[in-house]
Amino acid sequence: MSFTDYQEIKDKIVAFIRSKVHEAGASGAVIGLSGGIDSALTAYLTVEAVGAENVLGLMLPDKGITTGQDIGDAMEVVEELGIAHRIIEISGILHSFSSAIMDFDKKSLLANGNLKARTRMCILYYHANLMHRMVVGTGNKTELLLGYFTKYGDGGVDIEPIGGLYKTQVRGLASHMGLPAGIIEKVPTAGLWPGQTDEAELGVSYDTADRILSMLVDEKKDVTAAKKIFPPAQVDRLVSLLCANAHKRMPPEAAEI
Amino acid sequence: MSFTDYQEIKDKIVAFIRSKVHEAGASGAVIGLSGGIDSALTAYLTVEAVGAENVLGLMLPDKGITTGQDIGDAMEVVEELGIAHRIIEISGILHSFSSAIMDFDKKSLLANGNLKARTRMCILYYHANLMHRMVVGTGNKTELLLGYFTKYGDGGVDIEPIGGLYKTQVRGLASHMGLPAGIIEKVPTAGLWPGQTDEAELGVSYDTADRILSMLVDEKKDVTAAKKIFPPAQVDRLVSLLCANAHKRMPPEAAEI
Repeated sequence: MSFTDYQEIKDKIVAFIRSKVHEAGASGAVIGLSGGIDSALTAYLTVEAVGAENVLGLMLPDKGITTGQDIGDAMEVVEELGIAHRIIEISGILHSFSSAIMDFDKKSLLANGNLKARTRMCILYYHANLMHRMVVGTGNKTELLLGYFTKYGDGGVDIEPIGGLYKTQVRGLASHMGLPAGIIEKVPTAGLWPGQTDEAELGVSYDTADRILSMLVDEKKDVTAAKKIFPPAQVDRLVSLLCANAHKRMPPEAAEI
Repeated sequence: MSFTDYQEIKDKIVAFIRSKVHEAGASGAVIGLSGGIDSALTAYLTVEAVGAENVLGLMLPDKGITTGQDIGDAMEVVEELGIAHRIIEISGILHSFSSAIMDFDKKSLLANGNLKARTRMCILYYHANLMHRMVVGTGNKTELLLGYFTKYGDGGVDIEPIGGLYKTQVRGLASHMGLPAGIIEKVPTAGLWPGQTDEAELGVSYDTADRILSMLVDEKKDVTAAKKIFPPAQVDRLVSLLCANAHKRMPPEAAEI
């Protein structure tokens, strides 16, 4: 299906990051490291683009959800790349939101999950503002197309270097660049509530989702054609997400006068 | 210069809000009320569009910066319109960020001002998520063009109903709709640090800025022509802001593969 010349892909992304940081007049990059493959790969690419000394990795664990394994995996990236890092536990900040908001409802997975992602965005930009750096995003093409991210949370970044790569390509490039196997093989999760996994939430495996999306988006085949090859319910599920979340990929619309 | 048929402008914006809320399948609107004219006007328009019972006004004061006058003005809007409201003091949340962030620098106006705006965004969306509502933005065309807002802060909204109106048109429409004179005549400020005023920060009065922007953006005249009519330094200042902040009006760019 999609392009897999990983050396060429890598060169393009590294050149993209370098030119965007340069154009913005920024002094470097700030990246949130979750311990997952997307942020690890983004950190590797950004270090190649602007140098380890200009990259800050922020680990923003939430007590009770973020596992020791996640922190260990993120630390492995930090040490492998030789970048500066900070570990900032966000539970206290989340608690201050819950104390201040009269209608706070700890049972709403959506509201609380999004609040976590937005709190992390606030911290990333705080450091970026202090250091005159860019916030480098870690979203992949599968997630961006499906809107599988929090608007103004993990979607609130300055550039999306791996935003042109499907999740399966992210794995391919990560292998090509020699990322730790433990990170590549880990089950993907947004880590917003306990037990969350991307594939359970999407209802489609990444392998299948990427093939369906590539057929619809890149090859511009129609939905009927896709349903002859893939389970129709899965095609419908992805198309629904694509449409319902289109607003997340666009700036807020103004009324035309 | 610009269009001033305020009844027609009002009708267009009300129809825009109604159709966007309907299209999104949202149950209503959440609006941050600062006590200023932009958010007051947006609230009046939104109530006309979806009904007072479907609008929540959130007042998010920061102890020490937000004045009693601001809170009083926002309350006047709430009472005049008969909408539900909450007052949530954000100082405790800001303090929790400062406790958690090791490199916190209370002297950085930019980083701390942006953090306030982003904290407010988090709270607006928390309520919107709980209530299945949209976050209705309060940015005007002057601010949006100049990037005079915080990326993913007050710029982090679902729609911008008055985003097609220059600040001077905002005043005209507010008068037309009978908003309280105290709110219309108030000195505009983003309220992110003590003594901040928009016009001092922009270095150009809104009256002049709107006429220059309208000439460049709507009439598509060139910069040389504008400099024959307006002080060249002011034209240069606005053009610099327009260019430097273009990234704030666009979704984050992905590397093309």
